[in-house]
Amino acid sequence: MAKQERAVHTRKALIESAAELFSKHGFEVASLSMISARAGVSNGALHFHFASKAALGAAVWEAAAQRLRQITTDGVAGSGSGAGSGSRSSASSGAGAGAGSSVGEVGGALRVLVDTTHALLQALGHDVILRAGFGLSESLKSSVGGGDLWRWWQEWVEGVLAEADQEGALARDVSAQDAANTVVAATVGFGALGSRDAQWLSQGTLSRFWALLLPRLAAGAALEELAASGRRVGAG
Amino acid sequence: MAKQERAVHTRKALIESAAELFSKHGFEVASLSMISARAGVSNGALHFHFASKAALGAAVWEAAAQRLRQITTDGVAGSGSGAGSGSRSSASSGAGAGAGSSVGEVGGALRVLVDTTHALLQALGHDVILRAGFGLSESLKSSVGGGDLWRWWQEWVEGVLAEADQEGALARDVSAQDAANTVVAATVGFGALGSRDAQWLSQGTLSRFWALLLPRLAAGAALEELAASGRRVGAG
Repeated sequence: MAKQERAVHTRKALIESAAELFSKHGFEVASLSMISARAGVSNGALHFHFASKAALGAAVWEAAAQRLRQITTDGVAGSGSGAGSGSRSSASSGAGAGAGSSVGEVGGALRVLVDTTHALLQALGHDVILRAGFGLSESLKSSVGGGDLWRWWQEWVEGVLAEADQEGALARDVSAQDAANTVVAATVGFGALGSRDAQWLSQGTLSRFWALLLPRLAAGAALEELAASGRRVGAG
Repeated sequence: MAKQERAVHTRKALIESAAELFSKHGFEVASLSMISARAGVSNGALHFHFASKAALGAAVWEAAAQRLRQITTDGVAGSGSGAGSGSRSSASSGAGAGAGSSVGEVGGALRVLVDTTHALLQALGHDVILRAGFGLSESLKSSVGGGDLWRWWQEWVEGVLAEADQEGALARDVSAQDAANTVVAATVGFGALGSRDAQWLSQGTLSRFWALLLPRLAAGAALEELAASGRRVGAG
């Protein structure tokens, strides 16, 4: 039992060390011996857990995908537990339906979108596994079936904005697809810029982005319920 | 003379080959022998022109910086020649002043901004040197004095939007800085997404972005003069 716990601990340390070094030096440059050394683990122990760098990369990617899934389902479930979302196979497949079932008021889906972008950028700032996962997709094209995490994010955003459209929460002359493209491009940009300067991931920066965009995006009735800072207006 | 022309040609071929391989595999992974082979040049010839991979990286970066400078000064000079801009030492330093001196009407600086984002994304789509240059900054931190091209772009966008603000072209409740952050994040995002799917760099995608954003950004008088597609309304 203690042995098994230690194995779990070692595996976790290796994934974190790999994420740190992939993020810093890139997947191709980070070596297995750098990764084991940083994790305080022998090369033999690393090879016991992971047969190759690609296998380690896939494990980092999978851990990041799980976190992204959690962030998107947490957003849909509001500030609640996110329970019942564990069986979803991808962030995108659950998005639209989830937003519809958990929120009823006009502007509910837009609120989910604002909250979730805040949660994502905040997580990118402190969670090296999530950060590494978003960067890994290109290096692991062949070995990871799940694909690009930014592509998941795009599909999720598209789903939520289609939902907002159905709720009547979008301004008349705004298409859900154009809104989705803008939100996806901006969040990808905040993420990329944030890897060089953390200010781009701050709540203030994102709140000002939403304060700029929401009055254009949201129909009047929906706008009244929305807070650009990602907290719910009048929640308590 | 013919010898010198050949040397110029070889140098150019090496820079293009390096840009292609840096863009595709990353600076760290691309090797000098891959680069010389792709350029159809001997290793000896490569070393005659460039003492190290860092020197080659710096040459790619410098060529990209020159193109970015050209794109931003062309935008400022309208559809004209861009003459007289050669002496500028950075894209950012010339931005504000240039926009002011070349356009007079309300909305002139915003028009320059829209046109220039179109020119930049279009160039990122077909110009591998520009694309490589934007990616290189992190790998070359120590060896290139000029810094991050996205940072240059950010400073240029900030300059033009400050200009727009002075012209009275921004809506009353929009700050130039918030507008700049949004435009920079979105263009960085379009660039990053465009490296995987060229659709993100298309004129259509960017025009719809501006059609979404401009009605929020621009004061009424300025808005009438602006075309989201980057062509001047009523020009000709």
